[in-house]
Amino acid sequence: MNVEHLIKQMTLQEKIGQLIQILPSVYSDDHEDVITGPVAQLMKESGITSENRWEIGSVIGINNAAQARYIQSQYLEHNRLQIPLLFMADIIHGHRTIYPVPLAMASSWDIEAIEQMARQSAFEATVSGLHVTFSPMADLTRDARWGRVMEATGEDVWLNGEMAAAFVRGYQGTDLKNEGTLAACVKHFAAYGAPEGGRDYNTVDMSDRELREFYLPAYKRALDEGAKMVMTSFNVVDGIPATVSTYLLRDILRKEWAFDGVTISDWSSIKEVIFHGVAESLADAGRLAMEAGVDIDMMSGAYLNHLEEAIEQKRISVGKLDEAVLRILRLKDELGLFEHPYRGIETMTEQAVHLAPEHRAHARELAEKSIVLLKNEDILPLSNQKIALIGPFITSTDVLGPWAGSGKTEEAIPLIEAFREKGIPFSYSPGSGVEEEVDWEAAVETARQAEVIVLALGEASWMSGEAGSKTDIRLPKTQVDGLRKLAALNIPIVTVLFNGRPLDLRKVERYSTAILEAWYPGTETGHAVYNLLYGHQSPSAKLTMSFPHHVGQMPLRYDALRTGRPADIENADMRYTSKYLDAPNEALFPFGFGMSYAQFDYEQLTLSHHDCGHGDITATVKVSNTSTVEGDEIIQWYIQDQVAKVSRPVKQLKGFNRVTIAPGTSIEVELTISLDMLAYLHPDGSHSADDGYFTLFVGPSSTEGLSAEFALNRVVKEIQHEHDDEKTSTSAR
Amino acid sequence: MNVEHLIKQMTLQEKIGQLIQILPSVYSDDHEDVITGPVAQLMKESGITSENRWEIGSVIGINNAAQARYIQSQYLEHNRLQIPLLFMADIIHGHRTIYPVPLAMASSWDIEAIEQMARQSAFEATVSGLHVTFSPMADLTRDARWGRVMEATGEDVWLNGEMAAAFVRGYQGTDLKNEGTLAACVKHFAAYGAPEGGRDYNTVDMSDRELREFYLPAYKRALDEGAKMVMTSFNVVDGIPATVSTYLLRDILRKEWAFDGVTISDWSSIKEVIFHGVAESLADAGRLAMEAGVDIDMMSGAYLNHLEEAIEQKRISVGKLDEAVLRILRLKDELGLFEHPYRGIETMTEQAVHLAPEHRAHARELAEKSIVLLKNEDILPLSNQKIALIGPFITSTDVLGPWAGSGKTEEAIPLIEAFREKGIPFSYSPGSGVEEEVDWEAAVETARQAEVIVLALGEASWMSGEAGSKTDIRLPKTQVDGLRKLAALNIPIVTVLFNGRPLDLRKVERYSTAILEAWYPGTETGHAVYNLLYGHQSPSAKLTMSFPHHVGQMPLRYDALRTGRPADIENADMRYTSKYLDAPNEALFPFGFGMSYAQFDYEQLTLSHHDCGHGDITATVKVSNTSTVEGDEIIQWYIQDQVAKVSRPVKQLKGFNRVTIAPGTSIEVELTISLDMLAYLHPDGSHSADDGYFTLFVGPSSTEGLSAEFALNRVVKEIQHEHDDEKTSTSAR
Repeated sequence: MNVEHLIKQMTLQEKIGQLIQILPSVYSDDHEDVITGPVAQLMKESGITSENRWEIGSVIGINNAAQARYIQSQYLEHNRLQIPLLFMADIIHGHRTIYPVPLAMASSWDIEAIEQMARQSAFEATVSGLHVTFSPMADLTRDARWGRVMEATGEDVWLNGEMAAAFVRGYQGTDLKNEGTLAACVKHFAAYGAPEGGRDYNTVDMSDRELREFYLPAYKRALDEGAKMVMTSFNVVDGIPATVSTYLLRDILRKEWAFDGVTISDWSSIKEVIFHGVAESLADAGRLAMEAGVDIDMMSGAYLNHLEEAIEQKRISVGKLDEAVLRILRLKDELGLFEHPYRGIETMTEQAVHLAPEHRAHARELAEKSIVLLKNEDILPLSNQKIALIGPFITSTDVLGPWAGSGKTEEAIPLIEAFREKGIPFSYSPGSGVEEEVDWEAAVETARQAEVIVLALGEASWMSGEAGSKTDIRLPKTQVDGLRKLAALNIPIVTVLFNGRPLDLRKVERYSTAILEAWYPGTETGHAVYNLLYGHQSPSAKLTMSFPHHVGQMPLRYDALRTGRPADIENADMRYTSKYLDAPNEALFPFGFGMSYAQFDYEQLTLSHHDCGHGDITATVKVSNTSTVEGDEIIQWYIQDQVAKVSRPVKQLKGFNRVTIAPGTSIEVELTISLDMLAYLHPDGSHSADDGYFTLFVGPSSTEGLSAEFALNRVVKEIQHEHDDEKTSTSAR
Repeated sequence: MNVEHLIKQMTLQEKIGQLIQILPSVYSDDHEDVITGPVAQLMKESGITSENRWEIGSVIGINNAAQARYIQSQYLEHNRLQIPLLFMADIIHGHRTIYPVPLAMASSWDIEAIEQMARQSAFEATVSGLHVTFSPMADLTRDARWGRVMEATGEDVWLNGEMAAAFVRGYQGTDLKNEGTLAACVKHFAAYGAPEGGRDYNTVDMSDRELREFYLPAYKRALDEGAKMVMTSFNVVDGIPATVSTYLLRDILRKEWAFDGVTISDWSSIKEVIFHGVAESLADAGRLAMEAGVDIDMMSGAYLNHLEEAIEQKRISVGKLDEAVLRILRLKDELGLFEHPYRGIETMTEQAVHLAPEHRAHARELAEKSIVLLKNEDILPLSNQKIALIGPFITSTDVLGPWAGSGKTEEAIPLIEAFREKGIPFSYSPGSGVEEEVDWEAAVETARQAEVIVLALGEASWMSGEAGSKTDIRLPKTQVDGLRKLAALNIPIVTVLFNGRPLDLRKVERYSTAILEAWYPGTETGHAVYNLLYGHQSPSAKLTMSFPHHVGQMPLRYDALRTGRPADIENADMRYTSKYLDAPNEALFPFGFGMSYAQFDYEQLTLSHHDCGHGDITATVKVSNTSTVEGDEIIQWYIQDQVAKVSRPVKQLKGFNRVTIAPGTSIEVELTISLDMLAYLHPDGSHSADDGYFTLFVGPSSTEGLSAEFALNRVVKEIQHEHDDEKTSTSAR
């Protein structure tokens, strides 16, 4: 389609229509509903009429093929220029087959598995008629109070970028004209993940340095991977709502990054500029958003009701409008919509694709790779012990997590079902609901005869996700009480946790013999957890967000900047160091931490040479599986810059290797240390590496492992650390 | 003294000596100590020799006249050019007579009383030989986890400035040559009060907008008032340790603000630049600090050991050195030290001045004005009920709080002593220590026969103050358990709290009939609390830091920026607003809140005219004391800018009136609304007010009161609010 030609034929109203996104209900064929019912009310409020709805550009929230086909066909019957509608929705961790929530799948550190998840999700979504997904969410998160951490991939800037890129590759494939592809919309631009007090939609404030060093790179990585769209965020950045920030949307996004795809507001976020106190009226808000470069107005009515007047009064130029329209038309063209307005639903059926066996298999496999073993005192894997299944999540199907697309809880496999399928005998008692007291005494009686208690605890899915912020991040009280009662039996307790955020697990850790952090594993929950419990798979996941001791440590990050008064081991008793009087500085379970049924030893960290100024350094390390079972290990590489122009992280992840190691064998993995790994934002704005010394760490988590020094254009000093820790093991905690 | 002439006679070593600050122990006359003992070790580490100690510029931590006289006389016997030593110390809330901690005295909102406190403190300190105090601390604080909030004056930018200025006026008087004056050192420049996670010395990160709008103005206000010195802070700002930040110390402090006084590092903070990872060596750190413009090196050894070489190698210019030396010599001259090296101790004696009756009287009066009545269900003031005194703070003399100068706990009046002095009969039982279990059952038995329980609870003073950060800001568990046990008696409980930070008081609020937040009231604790309990004074204090419901709300501020999804009353049930699922957004006890035994009604808020573009607006309000007792009320004026270029606070304090109102009478107070109250930092860097509409609030706290609209260069719309709330009363909560 020659979209430049097309736009010349469009009226002003038709152009503006392309910039509008509305709900599918305005295309209801229920005449009464549209004319007098609740939809009529919605239409009236947003300025939609039974006429102009045929000029609208996109629809949010389509979820099945019949709906998509019906609306598109109705639309094309009325649309003068035969410009198809664009259908968008939140496909976050699967469409009908539900995979683990993003924070869970991030724990897999399995980039290919995430890409495959996105590919399968896209396939399922396209056969329901969708064209765009509001994913990946590349927001850096350091605050467990913020419920939406479950939709993010964690606290590391680089890893978030790698994962966001995997989502984009999976959704979009190599060409959006190919079957089963969705356009990806990176969100939320920018820094949505850092609200004050961990309270969703609250003010974000940070230095430009912090923004550029930690928050922006993952969005950029996703765009460099080819993501077609960017969604703005609800928060302010430097006092200005992101949705009307010319600094973010023009200076950085369009100019510095040369992004030429489509930008979209978040839900009603243009209107919300009024509530921020930065626009006097909806017209004002719309004008600011257009000036900043927001192409699509999601659900605020600002563009539909005020853009025409603004253009007629020359407060917005037709040139700016045309740019936005062109970008949208180009996306429709790239998706092949002009040739195939029923793309996806023309060639495939939902029945053949949704919940396809290979999708369920991958959902199970990804769940197995996402579930983190946090503690294990020689109890897992289970063998043929007498089992009591206790707790609200034994039977719960609330295991899909928030933003579960078109997933149906009734299609999720609860834990109990897997035990039944496998024919494992067990006794069962719920103990409590998530918050409701039921009968812990009965559960204690049930458990009394068991040799192992499998205790499934957690948060209801509504407790995290968007607008799911909490000040208290412990498990609901009744569950902790139940755990304590069960612990008095002195029977080993394997606690399996279902939740969408890092929790304060001090009590769970104290009273449990083993802990599996299952997150929300999705459709295949029961099978995945069962396989791990019984060792059909060894756990391999590693946390990508720190688990604190106490909510009072928030925000928490492994890559904290170095302070002037570090509370090191050697001065742990000194008052005047940077610490709390009543809690450790560190996480209870740190970034990168996760156990295995196998055991891995690290040794022989060697560097090809010691001065990066003489070319990339190849660091190698030997990792041995000293156990009798096969296992996957995620070998993590971190670097510390010893001296810089600004305070820099105590360490920062620079690479990892996800490897499978057979029992009794060793593997050698390497990291290529290149100059760009050493570069950072200097006070003068340059991005470069300083001559000097660096420390390389390699290990099974952010707090364990081997280290070595190297230099950039300096004489290499005596290597300090290699003698102290020639060998380290994953079991060391 | 012609200091320009003097400096020409100085050797390089003598000049460098002026830039050094050391401990008094290096002037010990104990030969063995200095040559081989612990002082020798200290001297060796810092590069002090038994020779160069006679060229040093200043001493930290002098605390009595004999010591000051001895050291100065020894020094002058040896110092070639007869340049006297400068003696500095932390005189924070009194020297020997201890006044309430700063966060407490801030609650008085009594600027003159604070100034008087500073004047008396200076008098006491000068007779002990001191010349400079490291006060006021003008750090804005929003995080109760940070223990050092007790040394600050709260969360409001403007009020902090007014208070910091009062400290400066009180310490310095009109001329430092006058008797009883101390030079004031404003600290900690800059933004020390915003450490990540509320953990002392941790990284500070904020936008330049935030820094300039909220954090910097109070320091500037103190300097505009004439403060002679500035201390750097431990944290980074924009990634650079404040102690070596040319942006802070040269660009802002020297250039923008034209400050020509003396700058000093915080304790060893030059050396700590190494731990921040921003200097390779102590020499490097010293050079960076000199470049940034730090005149005095407190205790790091960087200048003493490395400055000479840096100057010889021309890495630091002699010009920069001379500037620093000149500023220090000028301060010594301004203090009259050249003429009177024994200033203070020449003319007055400690015995005559320390704990002078008028000092103790003012300490008591300021304590009475600092203690906040947070709850009162018709139980206070007490009359002749049968009293049980319970709790660890009934007899405790740990009521001076952190940084209590030369105050002695044995000179503090505990609560029990006031009851004894007044001859009030009471029964007594401690219940517990601060953290140690003692015997709550015995306390319950003691209380059983009483008509009112006065329960004195709190934190030990070491739990707040510098390096006193906590993740849990509830009272120690044993105390809350005791409170619950006592509450079961159904006898009214008056809880008196001793603490240095806002606490999570949910349980205290639930089980207490009345709550007096006493903070650490100082030497006159018992008398002040007694006077309030028995209504000899009506409480009048108002919080200057919000008390949260839960530590999970941190950081918390009444002047939050407006968000796009405010959780207003009208949409309180909507999920997708900015709120927590498990706690309110608001404070349990908000900024500006505090009750009285009197009752005040607010009415007749009127504006002289409604457009500030036509000249300053005079707003008046009538406040009536509708009770039968005299009381002081702190009438607070707040303004909201309805629409701005950036998101601005929901409201901001712009003025207050502290008035005494006789029972049954009314008073009219006014606020002059001028353009500068409406100005803010625009995205283009300008500081100005926008045409538009504003809301004025007046009331007894940040959450209660009357409101009215006004405009700047706009047609005044119909005044919306005056009809809704024509009258309001302090009792309404």
